[in-house]
Amino acid sequence: MTVGVAVLGSTGSIGRSTVRVLERKKDRFKVIALTAYGSERLLREQAAAVEATFVGLVAPSGNVGDESQRGCNGRECLVEAATHPDVDIVVNAVVGAAGLEATLAALSAGKRVALANKESLVMAGELVLQTARERGGEVVPIDSEHSAVLQCVNGRPESELRRLILTASGGPFREWPQEQMHAATIEDALAHPTWQMGPKITVDSATLANKALEVIEAHHLFGLGYENIDVVVHPQSIVHAFTEFVDGSVLAQVGYPTMELPILYALTYPDRIPDHALPRFDPIEAGPLTFEAMRKDAFPTFLLGVEAGGAGGTAPAVFNAANEVAVQAFLDGRIGLGRIPVVIERILQAHTVSSADSLGSVLKADGWARRETEAACC
Amino acid sequence: MTVGVAVLGSTGSIGRSTVRVLERKKDRFKVIALTAYGSERLLREQAAAVEATFVGLVAPSGNVGDESQRGCNGRECLVEAATHPDVDIVVNAVVGAAGLEATLAALSAGKRVALANKESLVMAGELVLQTARERGGEVVPIDSEHSAVLQCVNGRPESELRRLILTASGGPFREWPQEQMHAATIEDALAHPTWQMGPKITVDSATLANKALEVIEAHHLFGLGYENIDVVVHPQSIVHAFTEFVDGSVLAQVGYPTMELPILYALTYPDRIPDHALPRFDPIEAGPLTFEAMRKDAFPTFLLGVEAGGAGGTAPAVFNAANEVAVQAFLDGRIGLGRIPVVIERILQAHTVSSADSLGSVLKADGWARRETEAACC
Repeated sequence: MTVGVAVLGSTGSIGRSTVRVLERKKDRFKVIALTAYGSERLLREQAAAVEATFVGLVAPSGNVGDESQRGCNGRECLVEAATHPDVDIVVNAVVGAAGLEATLAALSAGKRVALANKESLVMAGELVLQTARERGGEVVPIDSEHSAVLQCVNGRPESELRRLILTASGGPFREWPQEQMHAATIEDALAHPTWQMGPKITVDSATLANKALEVIEAHHLFGLGYENIDVVVHPQSIVHAFTEFVDGSVLAQVGYPTMELPILYALTYPDRIPDHALPRFDPIEAGPLTFEAMRKDAFPTFLLGVEAGGAGGTAPAVFNAANEVAVQAFLDGRIGLGRIPVVIERILQAHTVSSADSLGSVLKADGWARRETEAACC
Repeated sequence: MTVGVAVLGSTGSIGRSTVRVLERKKDRFKVIALTAYGSERLLREQAAAVEATFVGLVAPSGNVGDESQRGCNGRECLVEAATHPDVDIVVNAVVGAAGLEATLAALSAGKRVALANKESLVMAGELVLQTARERGGEVVPIDSEHSAVLQCVNGRPESELRRLILTASGGPFREWPQEQMHAATIEDALAHPTWQMGPKITVDSATLANKALEVIEAHHLFGLGYENIDVVVHPQSIVHAFTEFVDGSVLAQVGYPTMELPILYALTYPDRIPDHALPRFDPIEAGPLTFEAMRKDAFPTFLLGVEAGGAGGTAPAVFNAANEVAVQAFLDGRIGLGRIPVVIERILQAHTVSSADSLGSVLKADGWARRETEAACC
């Protein structure tokens, strides 16, 4: 029996990797639905290759389906794909806040969400997990760090976990003096040492905003307090996370940077199926493995993110929205890199934290933060 | 409800660590029986401290029990302790072939054997595991490498495993030219860089005979062919093993060298209980972690051991016995270090491999190999 899969955001970096994995594992998975934001041509190619029966293009455009497909246009395609009756697993690789509604819809329909969309847990972690619990859905992370932890936890109860240490490559500015980072160019920020990713997430990796979002996600996924989630800089990106248990034992998942492995694991979890497409791990080639303390003072965006996580409620949604808008302003050349945390901090200070117990309250805080940040950035 | 424990070999290195762990976890474990070879005074002290009700001294001597204890004298004490009705878990930390009979007896009685005695699996791996399966017993390894693998496997089926990479510190001779090793002194061989252990196992770590024994154990414990069990030199002894799954993912257990963690895990497996006695892992302090290929040509004893494992039947028992006698001859100053593999190879060549399907056939091969090796060593 094959498992039905929807891939939301199929033309992005994670989406393309997901389609590659699904094409390799056709005997086990059937791609039912694909959605993309605006890359219509690639979406059509993918849909033809995997014989998807539902194709959704979020950006305003013509109908994308051919005669054998149900075409969909507009933002509501995400929810439609996520709740499609033939879909068992929704791979949510949408970038940004738009992914949250689809996550909640899929979980409400009792489906597994293989989650690459960080915003779902960052903006509304408690709401997302509560929805999963109440409706029989399930969240399985696709992030390499959280997949690493999940593989190490492997069904053991949360009560046996004591601490997580997420690794960070340190990004392109790992060794830059803080003063110099303020004047970094877009090219500097996009020169990520170990991972190939989209521009938004690459800038987040440079400011370590990304790592703050991962800390917030880990808090929700694994039920640990923020004081028990550490970050260590590991320039080789071979150890993806350390998972410490209550008896003091520490497990780690290791390997060359690739998203295909976390994607495959999220699809097959808790089982594993044979796959030979990826380069085999060789510790001799991979080492030496080095670890260093994170220069927290040099990465104020990280500190603001973790602080927002600790504040809870709508604070992390506001952090996320302010960061998203500020990063776009940086990518547009409207503000310098050093302005990103300054702007975010101003927005967070202006925000009155309230409960994030509904999609409406979360989206309201998100919208407010976007408008405020836009105003602050121009 | 407390779990009854017998510790066989309680005065040795692993035995003392086990008693320390059990004293910390009195609320959960009750030490029923302790046995030692000849360290009568320490055995009495331990028995008093943990209030053991059965105390066995294997070496010929007076009765070791006080009025509140059942004292036992002689080799049969091992089996008696291992099959004691109040015992649920037998920690078998006996050094050498004497541990095998106790392992089989405990498994036949349906008990868990927390196994530090390498010889049980090396000499009679199939027989031991068959006994466990048939009689409801269970083998949980205490070796740091095998415990690492078990923690990473964590209940997943053997069919999901693809390869193991056991790590080796490389021992004191890691960088010695092979010619020089032939003339190494006892002091040289006992200068292990990272682990504090008894003299026999320390010499085995220097010749890497120990690693060959571990490869054979891993073959039995995890159902992998010898071609799928690799060894890599890792001088820091922080990563205890790499476990590769069929999807290409690799998990590792990491930590500072201590036997207390594998001991505790073997007692609580598959659960974990809180323990704060051990230093907390810090990847920054532990790193950099380096890995290098093993210079197999420089460690002929390792190659002979793995070859004997692959030959199966009584061959590994003969390798083990020949190695044990040759190491003792080295420790007695009767032969040089370089003679150990020469002697072992001669004995293996003279041996006609037969089936190791009973304790009798295994002990017969063991006895033959000991006599032959004694004769060859003097």
